[in-house]
Amino acid sequence: MPPGCVDPPLVAVREAVARALAEDLLPLGDLTASLVPESSTGRAALVVRSEGVVAGRLCATESFAQVDPGLIVDWHFPDGSKVLPGNAVAEVSGQMRALLAAERTALNFLCHLSGVATMARRYVEAVCAANPATRVLDTRKTTPGLRALEKAAVRAGGAQNHRGNLSEAVLVKDNHLVGLRMSEAVSLAHGRWPGRLVEVECDRAEQVAEALSAGASAVLLDNMTPDAVAYCVALVRERAGPGTVLVEVSGSVSLESAPAYARAGADLISVGALTHSAPVLDISLDLIAVRGDEARPVLGGL
Amino acid sequence: MPPGCVDPPLVAVREAVARALAEDLLPLGDLTASLVPESSTGRAALVVRSEGVVAGRLCATESFAQVDPGLIVDWHFPDGSKVLPGNAVAEVSGQMRALLAAERTALNFLCHLSGVATMARRYVEAVCAANPATRVLDTRKTTPGLRALEKAAVRAGGAQNHRGNLSEAVLVKDNHLVGLRMSEAVSLAHGRWPGRLVEVECDRAEQVAEALSAGASAVLLDNMTPDAVAYCVALVRERAGPGTVLVEVSGSVSLESAPAYARAGADLISVGALTHSAPVLDISLDLIAVRGDEARPVLGGL
Amino acid sequence: MPPGCVDPPLVAVREAVARALAEDLLPLGDLTASLVPESSTGRAALVVRSEGVVAGRLCATESFAQVDPGLIVDWHFPDGSKVLPGNAVAEVSGQMRALLAAERTALNFLCHLSGVATMARRYVEAVCAANPATRVLDTRKTTPGLRALEKAAVRAGGAQNHRGNLSEAVLVKDNHLVGLRMSEAVSLAHGRWPGRLVEVECDRAEQVAEALSAGASAVLLDNMTPDAVAYCVALVRERAGPGTVLVEVSGSVSLESAPAYARAGADLISVGALTHSAPVLDISLDLIAVRGDEARPVLGGL
Amino acid sequence: MPPGCVDPPLVAVREAVARALAEDLLPLGDLTASLVPESSTGRAALVVRSEGVVAGRLCATESFAQVDPGLIVDWHFPDGSKVLPGNAVAEVSGQMRALLAAERTALNFLCHLSGVATMARRYVEAVCAANPATRVLDTRKTTPGLRALEKAAVRAGGAQNHRGNLSEAVLVKDNHLVGLRMSEAVSLAHGRWPGRLVEVECDRAEQVAEALSAGASAVLLDNMTPDAVAYCVALVRERAGPGTVLVEVSGSVSLESAPAYARAGADLISVGALTHSAPVLDISLDLIAVRGDEARPVLGGL
Amino acid sequence: MPPGCVDPPLVAVREAVARALAEDLLPLGDLTASLVPESSTGRAALVVRSEGVVAGRLCATESFAQVDPGLIVDWHFPDGSKVLPGNAVAEVSGQMRALLAAERTALNFLCHLSGVATMARRYVEAVCAANPATRVLDTRKTTPGLRALEKAAVRAGGAQNHRGNLSEAVLVKDNHLVGLRMSEAVSLAHGRWPGRLVEVECDRAEQVAEALSAGASAVLLDNMTPDAVAYCVALVRERAGPGTVLVEVSGSVSLESAPAYARAGADLISVGALTHSAPVLDISLDLIAVRGDEARPVLGGL
Amino acid sequence: MPPGCVDPPLVAVREAVARALAEDLLPLGDLTASLVPESSTGRAALVVRSEGVVAGRLCATESFAQVDPGLIVDWHFPDGSKVLPGNAVAEVSGQMRALLAAERTALNFLCHLSGVATMARRYVEAVCAANPATRVLDTRKTTPGLRALEKAAVRAGGAQNHRGNLSEAVLVKDNHLVGLRMSEAVSLAHGRWPGRLVEVECDRAEQVAEALSAGASAVLLDNMTPDAVAYCVALVRERAGPGTVLVEVSGSVSLESAPAYARAGADLISVGALTHSAPVLDISLDLIAVRGDEARPVLGGL
Repeated sequence: MPPGCVDPPLVAVREAVARALAEDLLPLGDLTASLVPESSTGRAALVVRSEGVVAGRLCATESFAQVDPGLIVDWHFPDGSKVLPGNAVAEVSGQMRALLAAERTALNFLCHLSGVATMARRYVEAVCAANPATRVLDTRKTTPGLRALEKAAVRAGGAQNHRGNLSEAVLVKDNHLVGLRMSEAVSLAHGRWPGRLVEVECDRAEQVAEALSAGASAVLLDNMTPDAVAYCVALVRERAGPGTVLVEVSGSVSLESAPAYARAGADLISVGALTHSAPVLDISLDLIAVRGDEARPVLGGL
Repeated sequence: MPPGCVDPPLVAVREAVARALAEDLLPLGDLTASLVPESSTGRAALVVRSEGVVAGRLCATESFAQVDPGLIVDWHFPDGSKVLPGNAVAEVSGQMRALLAAERTALNFLCHLSGVATMARRYVEAVCAANPATRVLDTRKTTPGLRALEKAAVRAGGAQNHRGNLSEAVLVKDNHLVGLRMSEAVSLAHGRWPGRLVEVECDRAEQVAEALSAGASAVLLDNMTPDAVAYCVALVRERAGPGTVLVEVSGSVSLESAPAYARAGADLISVGALTHSAPVLDISLDLIAVRGDEARPVLGGL
Repeated sequence: MPPGCVDPPLVAVREAVARALAEDLLPLGDLTASLVPESSTGRAALVVRSEGVVAGRLCATESFAQVDPGLIVDWHFPDGSKVLPGNAVAEVSGQMRALLAAERTALNFLCHLSGVATMARRYVEAVCAANPATRVLDTRKTTPGLRALEKAAVRAGGAQNHRGNLSEAVLVKDNHLVGLRMSEAVSLAHGRWPGRLVEVECDRAEQVAEALSAGASAVLLDNMTPDAVAYCVALVRERAGPGTVLVEVSGSVSLESAPAYARAGADLISVGALTHSAPVLDISLDLIAVRGDEARPVLGGL
Repeated sequence: MPPGCVDPPLVAVREAVARALAEDLLPLGDLTASLVPESSTGRAALVVRSEGVVAGRLCATESFAQVDPGLIVDWHFPDGSKVLPGNAVAEVSGQMRALLAAERTALNFLCHLSGVATMARRYVEAVCAANPATRVLDTRKTTPGLRALEKAAVRAGGAQNHRGNLSEAVLVKDNHLVGLRMSEAVSLAHGRWPGRLVEVECDRAEQVAEALSAGASAVLLDNMTPDAVAYCVALVRERAGPGTVLVEVSGSVSLESAPAYARAGADLISVGALTHSAPVLDISLDLIAVRGDEARPVLGGL
Repeated sequence: MPPGCVDPPLVAVREAVARALAEDLLPLGDLTASLVPESSTGRAALVVRSEGVVAGRLCATESFAQVDPGLIVDWHFPDGSKVLPGNAVAEVSGQMRALLAAERTALNFLCHLSGVATMARRYVEAVCAANPATRVLDTRKTTPGLRALEKAAVRAGGAQNHRGNLSEAVLVKDNHLVGLRMSEAVSLAHGRWPGRLVEVECDRAEQVAEALSAGASAVLLDNMTPDAVAYCVALVRERAGPGTVLVEVSGSVSLESAPAYARAGADLISVGALTHSAPVLDISLDLIAVRGDEARPVLGGL
Repeated sequence: MPPGCVDPPLVAVREAVARALAEDLLPLGDLTASLVPESSTGRAALVVRSEGVVAGRLCATESFAQVDPGLIVDWHFPDGSKVLPGNAVAEVSGQMRALLAAERTALNFLCHLSGVATMARRYVEAVCAANPATRVLDTRKTTPGLRALEKAAVRAGGAQNHRGNLSEAVLVKDNHLVGLRMSEAVSLAHGRWPGRLVEVECDRAEQVAEALSAGASAVLLDNMTPDAVAYCVALVRERAGPGTVLVEVSGSVSLESAPAYARAGADLISVGALTHSAPVLDISLDLIAVRGDEARPVLGGL
């Protein structure tokens, strides 16, 4: 597990799972599972179908538990683990009806969050190979209602969290500067919100110089070329000293372009796609064994 | 707007927006927007950056309204509209602080749901060109907490909704058949849940024959080749008569393979990726005009 | 409107309606209403089918408003009104889709709460004819989740509310007296919960005497005959003076037996059936006029 | 237990119970139970007072558990059981204060839901005796906030669930046909909502013929006489073949008239009264034993 | 523990704690605790820093449990206990990360509610010394969202609860009497809300006489001197008999003036400050022992 | 209004008000207000009784609006205004019943939040007079459930917000350092949570030196004397340069001692008492005029 891979708060997990189960089960419950004899019990594996990184363990466990506290889930791969096709990340056992009713909700969390972690890991590996000092960040472009869970999945992927929300740090963008000079904005920010990062978005090198003069604690280089970034990094290092002002790159970053930005010396590369456009990691539930009055052997093909 | 493009229930919109705003604004509100003078007002456009289909109008409007009921949003492109880079789907005006504080939440909904609608439209166009009688469906593989909104976005994209949840219809899969014969399952289903679609997942043609004998109202051909699908379609048409038993294809469907499945005669093609792996449609907020004590003209570069 | 017929708190109305709409509309909305052209608008009446008393106005109005704030509801009969078959208690107008989607939720509230008010009115009339000084009360036997709304419907029916919940007053029953003497219970109650009604349930006249000695502020005569009640009333009046200790009757009260209990001199007759077993008052929605591109005249038969 | 008697989703149970307890206990808790010594513990039975069918086990258990996780509930009669006066459906034991504070909430669920199950069973027995092929259905006329629980109680009674809500199936009524021809409505419905039941309400036999031509999957015969129903059933069987189009009867159905409709050959008889007008099944809590510093023996009369 | 010190309903505790944890932990969890090794476990004491009375045990326990069900809390001083600086009211043990993440939320409840209990106890002691028959009450001036918890803390302090809310009892103040004569108000109140306390606020002795004539069950002497109170008490006792009409004092009550009001014979003294202005009781969490791969001994100074 | 006095997010206001109204009005509504004729309307002022600073305008307005959207509130003193006894901060008008039912909830918010603002202002004035460069901060010691509202009240008082919650910044305390060296903690923090303030709590000057070496961005001097603070400030300025590392003082700060800490050169002084122990600002509702069938003139004494 990546060292900073700390779980999302349980309070977020419980609420998200309750909402998701309500969506999938109300009002009548699982019509199809009701056909399975009440006495049937079984064991199933959550099996990965393509290479990736696991995240969402707490959500999946909670999904099974909220459907039936008697379902037992054992995890073989903790969040942050690299997995290969065929790996069983976990096994679940208990009443078949409950297990089947919870399956899709548990998988929806697990596949989506593992998809986020997997994309995060890809960026981290690409960036790290180019410049081990550069870190990959997420953004506030998260799926509504899943902020805490997706940001935890980003950590499971080995990337890091940009500000959690608008309440955490100051990030002055073009739209803020329409009625305000940059120096004024930065100085107001330090004055009103002491101790917060005050970052300024810059499209051009001159703005970087202005931001440094204004006292920004970080600059966000938006939609620049790697060369322009390298120029700005040098400017920042020269004027502000190493490590005192963070240089973040964002805007036109892809898996292909990220290494160049890393080599250009950016401290941070933030990537909205980690949370807004990660395809799922394909994970499905395979039955291993079933027991009950009318149960029959599970065929190999399962 | 596609003919079946009916909005999601307002009750789902309101709750999802309240949750998303709480995520982004609590506890301190928007630190950066607080730097903008309280008296500044402005007008901004929501501008599309790449080709696609719009969805999420109600969520975006509600996001602005819940931050400040004084913000006014005018829509130029209703949900379901095709848009091109540069199109302004809507304009928002009102207090700058509120407008900026709501921006990201509104866009997170709009970009994600338009991404879903855009992918749905792509599948619909590919499938319709191959066979106008085949329809594209979503699945239950939705993002937890956004079921109602994503399913509405699928409709905006011109595709259609598979069952809303486990409570709506019967879909017997392999995992259900471990403790139960297929004929038994179908007959139990018709008996206990009268009037519901009773669909059976089939991996092989023999199972299709068994499902028809059992009285299934639809068969789900999972992970079959187009040829195998064509064979099964013929089997169904021959035994059950046209239009009485629906043939659905799922499993190994991509934008590339979908037309072949359509040509094979499937009634329905269901695609989990519509909701679980659609990248966002890139839409951003551009200021058009700002007014206030200290406001300055908005430059073209914005 | 009965003089004490005060509306339920809006906060209770809003939450109950949001819950009920979510139940009926999620996840896909009203499939059938989606077939009606979006441009159709109409006007409809909420028409009573049998004699009764109206209650639930706020809930019905809120149901329409939460589906579409553009729907307009005009009430002709306020809560507490007696209505006859054919009376239109209200008219609704606006978009047909929204009107039809909200119809059942609005009616479920209106019919149920009017059913409660109607049964309350029947008891009030029977009791009042026998003894105008006797009042009819509800109990805590309400439908879970609807306490505030049903208790308001009871008031609309002209009856009155017993304690709102366990937190409001002390009512010592047999089960409380197993580990406690009655005198001890009453004295503890006055000491710990100053200013609350301290009522004691009595099955026999001796218990009434004991309750009076203990200082009870009311006695609840449970499952007694009217004669036994008359005896206890005399006992209470003699020992405690008129009006100082309330005599409540409950347990074997029906519309038939209630007048006898009233004539026996009970101050209060409490009837669980008002809220737990009232059949609905039959009210339905009839279209009056429809307008739209494809609309046709509404026939008389509607 | 009836074979289709599947429990309501736990997520619905937990939320409904939390709401109900908040209604009955806030803000001060149970004033009267506070008089009982904290150390008193006891055992009590939930005893039925009249013949009926039990439902609501999960809700009652959850009510006790949410007040005090230490309360233990043992069920003697599972949901769907027929019970006679004097039967103890369950026993509860634990701290007296908690047991008494939870009593009414647990009973409000149990009595109401058992009332629904009891009425369902009565209809099922009457109908089944007349025509074993006819099934009894509920409707969407449920008590607001209790849809999932009441529909589960209907199943415990041995009847079946009509559509869970507006999102599940298409049911075209008169009010929908004002701006739309029936054939158009049915064809739109099949097109937009593939796989759903498309049912059409008919008042007259000609409408049934029209519905069959339009391709309806079911017809709802509203307020017809048994003779008219028999005529329509014959029409449907002749034109559509047995079992392909369902015939549902509703509108003027009572326990007395239901058998005649069953004999007329209806597949389904739907009865709003199951959920909107079922009186409670009388169940109460009787103490069996109490223990504590100051406890005294429980008298026989309890 | 004071005899009437009954815990708040668990349903209120659970909701308040979930809200408080969400406030403190979302979206990213405890950044600082994430630095502590996941394997570290520890034991800590909740140590009181100044003299007072403990309340809030359930909330503190629930705070730890909702962060991590594996945390174990042992209480040494139940709610209502007097504590001295240095007393450890409880010990918590378990995973260090969870323990530290929950610390502040648990303490925020415990310190605030103990602050309320401590102020209540001070008033109770001052009043009881002056007149053991006089009781101290809280008011409805509680912190929004914490009504049930603060009223339980008042009981832990040994004082008592005035009405829980507006729904529990009638208290006629000046503002109500603008459109209504007092006699009319009292008589309406008895008529519409049978069995409730009907209290009347009085500024002058003549109003007390009027209230008694009107049939008030209690008088609230607002902002009177102790002498005026003594005069009114005598008036009440003479006209209404001892114990039949309660005399409550409020308005200008402080710890200094309370004894004089008690000596003046008031039955009840209500003090808004108990809940609206009680400073916290200072309680903090001290580590006792830590275990883990990298743990070092805890120094005495901790 | 103080320049940084930005309102709390509306989403927090709406939820807190709905909760508070439910506490005060459920289940039966305002019994006493129900006695006032439904037709009575009135106008009232919210009048301050002692000197202070106003906060909570949005909450008070929302309280009236949620009880009755027809109530109109006009504010004369915006949040952050200094007020004197007798000042009417706002006027409310509308239906008397609604106005009286909402009064206490509106005032509970207004008085508590104004109390917080008032205490914040006192500290700000004391500190600013001693050293205009020193700023006063709140802490996370807020009342559970009111974090967003109390932190906004602190801003209205002219003080500033420390981190909003555990998710916003890193603050390493003694308890974190048991299993971790300080240098390790600081370096982990910068690595895992880039861009966050990394503050270290220090009890002694040597720890300050250690924190500076470790790369802390701020030091929290806990429970030091002003002289010790002055020494540490000098140390920080010498080693880290002015403005680069913030010096915060907390622990033994009172209104009396705060100026000395300010003169000692602290950048920030944080005071838990602002939110955990601020007594209310006394504000009450005075009727100005009443109108209605039975209304009588309002006397001067009101």
